[in-house]
Amino acid sequence: MTSLEMLKKINAMAEFNQWCGIEVTVAQPGAVEIQMPWRPEVGQYSGFLHAGLIGTLIDTACGFAAATVSGPNLLAAHFSVNCLRPAVGEKFIARARVVKPGKAQVFTACDLFALDLEGEKLVANGQTLLTVVK
Amino acid sequence: MTSLEMLKKINAMAEFNQWCGIEVTVAQPGAVEIQMPWRPEVGQYSGFLHAGLIGTLIDTACGFAAATVSGPNLLAAHFSVNCLRPAVGEKFIARARVVKPGKAQVFTACDLFALDLEGEKLVANGQTLLTVVK
Amino acid sequence: MTSLEMLKKINAMAEFNQWCGIEVTVAQPGAVEIQMPWRPEVGQYSGFLHAGLIGTLIDTACGFAAATVSGPNLLAAHFSVNCLRPAVGEKFIARARVVKPGKAQVFTACDLFALDLEGEKLVANGQTLLTVVK
Amino acid sequence: MTSLEMLKKINAMAEFNQWCGIEVTVAQPGAVEIQMPWRPEVGQYSGFLHAGLIGTLIDTACGFAAATVSGPNLLAAHFSVNCLRPAVGEKFIARARVVKPGKAQVFTACDLFALDLEGEKLVANGQTLLTVVK
Repeated sequence: MTSLEMLKKINAMAEFNQWCGIEVTVAQPGAVEIQMPWRPEVGQYSGFLHAGLIGTLIDTACGFAAATVSGPNLLAAHFSVNCLRPAVGEKFIARARVVKPGKAQVFTACDLFALDLEGEKLVANGQTLLTVVK
Repeated sequence: MTSLEMLKKINAMAEFNQWCGIEVTVAQPGAVEIQMPWRPEVGQYSGFLHAGLIGTLIDTACGFAAATVSGPNLLAAHFSVNCLRPAVGEKFIARARVVKPGKAQVFTACDLFALDLEGEKLVANGQTLLTVVK
Repeated sequence: MTSLEMLKKINAMAEFNQWCGIEVTVAQPGAVEIQMPWRPEVGQYSGFLHAGLIGTLIDTACGFAAATVSGPNLLAAHFSVNCLRPAVGEKFIARARVVKPGKAQVFTACDLFALDLEGEKLVANGQTLLTVVK
Repeated sequence: MTSLEMLKKINAMAEFNQWCGIEVTVAQPGAVEIQMPWRPEVGQYSGFLHAGLIGTLIDTACGFAAATVSGPNLLAAHFSVNCLRPAVGEKFIARARVVKPGKAQVFTACDLFALDLEGEKLVANGQTLLTVVK
């Protein structure tokens, strides 16, 4: 099973990921990309992507990136998010990478882009520290 | 309009909050409580509350706490989440407070509890730094 | 050896803590207090306590709080700091507590106060996630 | 006055930076590098660079990077640090960049490297959110 197949399988098992419409589009050792379409149900009160879903995309992409090096038995211990610009677009693309793998914990980072007719724009970034479950 | 009425109105305008089933249950100057019921659609792959929704509850409660002192024109600039224990329960209760109000930015903090037959358990905490939009 | 004796011993072994003039003043299971006097050498360019030393006090107090429950074999994996007000005072007092102990990692939090003739003022807060070294 | 001259001047005014031996080695619009030599006084109890000084280097480099785009009237509101590997070396090099400039706040990020005979090694990373003081 390739990393991409493993992540697609995990993604399909997470009911919330399915509701969000998250798709795993790229998976290499230590790096992944996921995408999610905009629709009104993912908005906050002024019609931007809800910060909770910004966090969801960053945490999910980071967890998947970690899983490509450490396997799926991981739990997020800490994550943080910077909201750089209003998250408005037709589609959101999160690209995460492993910063430092490890036997006990994995450090990861992620950039989140909004895609519209003008192209991709960086709207948020973040990081997740995952614990390897034994 | 009381703080509680203002927050219930903002909460009703956020489509994602409505999908989550978030309710504003307490609002005092500088402190709020919100609640969300468990259902399978909010789960990650092993049936715990998805970390993205842990972030959603913390970010939302922090934003509402800030709104009780600074009004609703706020944007989250940064938020972070500690996942302390598996988030399993029938209902989730987020209690947020303003740590430091300000004209330009508001510092907030939040504890997230899971409620089951044995009572409340602290499952996560976090903080949000909000910018006052002028 | 009491927790206070253990922490005073560790504190005496850290050359940077000695240069800072950090003293351990309280140690209970899961909670500690440390203090540091102001002097010009700890200032940034406008005469406030340097943010790096705000971080030093928060990280040190959090590590000591964790050591009261998990022993001294700990490494900080992540820490974060909120600078709430200009850190100006004659003395700085950091009070840290364990939020969630654990076999693999310990979550802690800390408040930092500046003391002057008017009393104590909260100037910063922060948190540290420590890994238990095996 | 170039950015590098401005930063060298600010650095010379911060007494703690002087004690640390911090030098500004590179400054371009949105990106800087600073360096600090190891000496025993900057160690924690087991002889690694103290986490507080890891934070000092990251916060300082981030603030200097922000100053190249927003001028020197900035205050750190929030910063966070990931300790990726034991920080051991003869010299420490922090490279920071502006992730998102702004009129009210500046988002920055930094990598910290330890230099020894084998070359540079990434030992920590972090980020700082700065507020523009008006």
